[in-house]
Amino acid sequence: MTQVFDVNSLNAFLEGTENVLKTMCQTTPVSGKPHLRKDSSCKGDISGTISLTSQDQRGSVTLAFSKDAALFIVSRMLSEEKTWLDKEVKDAVGELTNMIAGDSRKNLSAHGMKFEAGIPMVIIGPDHEIYTEVSGTAPVISIPFSVDEEHPFSIDFSFEIIPKTKK
Amino acid sequence: MTQVFDVNSLNAFLEGTENVLKTMCQTTPVSGKPHLRKDSSCKGDISGTISLTSQDQRGSVTLAFSKDAALFIVSRMLSEEKTWLDKEVKDAVGELTNMIAGDSRKNLSAHGMKFEAGIPMVIIGPDHEIYTEVSGTAPVISIPFSVDEEHPFSIDFSFEIIPKTKK
Repeated sequence: MTQVFDVNSLNAFLEGTENVLKTMCQTTPVSGKPHLRKDSSCKGDISGTISLTSQDQRGSVTLAFSKDAALFIVSRMLSEEKTWLDKEVKDAVGELTNMIAGDSRKNLSAHGMKFEAGIPMVIIGPDHEIYTEVSGTAPVISIPFSVDEEHPFSIDFSFEIIPKTKK
Repeated sequence: MTQVFDVNSLNAFLEGTENVLKTMCQTTPVSGKPHLRKDSSCKGDISGTISLTSQDQRGSVTLAFSKDAALFIVSRMLSEEKTWLDKEVKDAVGELTNMIAGDSRKNLSAHGMKFEAGIPMVIIGPDHEIYTEVSGTAPVISIPFSVDEEHPFSIDFSFEIIPKTKK
């Protein structure tokens, strides 16, 4: 079994994010240096998260957008200028989360890691924090991005080996 | 296959919440009327959420606490007065979410519905909104509660049948 966190899996999420934003939003996000989170959260004004489960591993992927990044991306996606985080933006962030998770899963699958996805969830609230892994047993990897030169967002993912007694 | 949302499953989450808070926090929450959410979110200052998956269904359970409810409950749990949403409160909310999901799963299992749990996630942010189901395909059931006479919290759950092509 290959555990998520090698270069292949990092690239799976990186490329999944880039592919979907290029295809759906005609924008190429600029990625920063991936890093390991240590008891810190991702922060956003609007976030999408989805659980991913394989035979052996369980975890999640979370996209946390600043308000400006979300409005820029969703305006491109819908070809309509969005100026506040309304229902359409909320639904679009859920859809983007689903698509980015789907594209990343396809990339992971090419390296022998087959994951099933849960239902996307969207969180809205100024500067909220999401602790994607509170049990402290799994590392959290975060990749920072920006769009339109300055507006930040991030993708965090975290997986743990399913304890055998719980399978 | 029994789908979640009959009286048994509603009671599974209701009793799971009550059991854990009675046992771990020596407090008996007062439940309000369960209702179906229609394109509305749960709201909280600190929330815990966990994905649940069976052979046929996938979904999540989310506990959304007002700040005062969380501080009251966690102070009881830790036998120490907590006055702000610090790391200990965050970890305790994650643990409570895990335990309530676990107790609810045990109750569901007694009615033939076996679910596996994901990793708990905790969200912090004043008055954040969580849309637990953005695809619009699954109903969301919410049970409101209060503790210490007035401080509100809620438990929301939502499940959809896994499409056969995605299995």
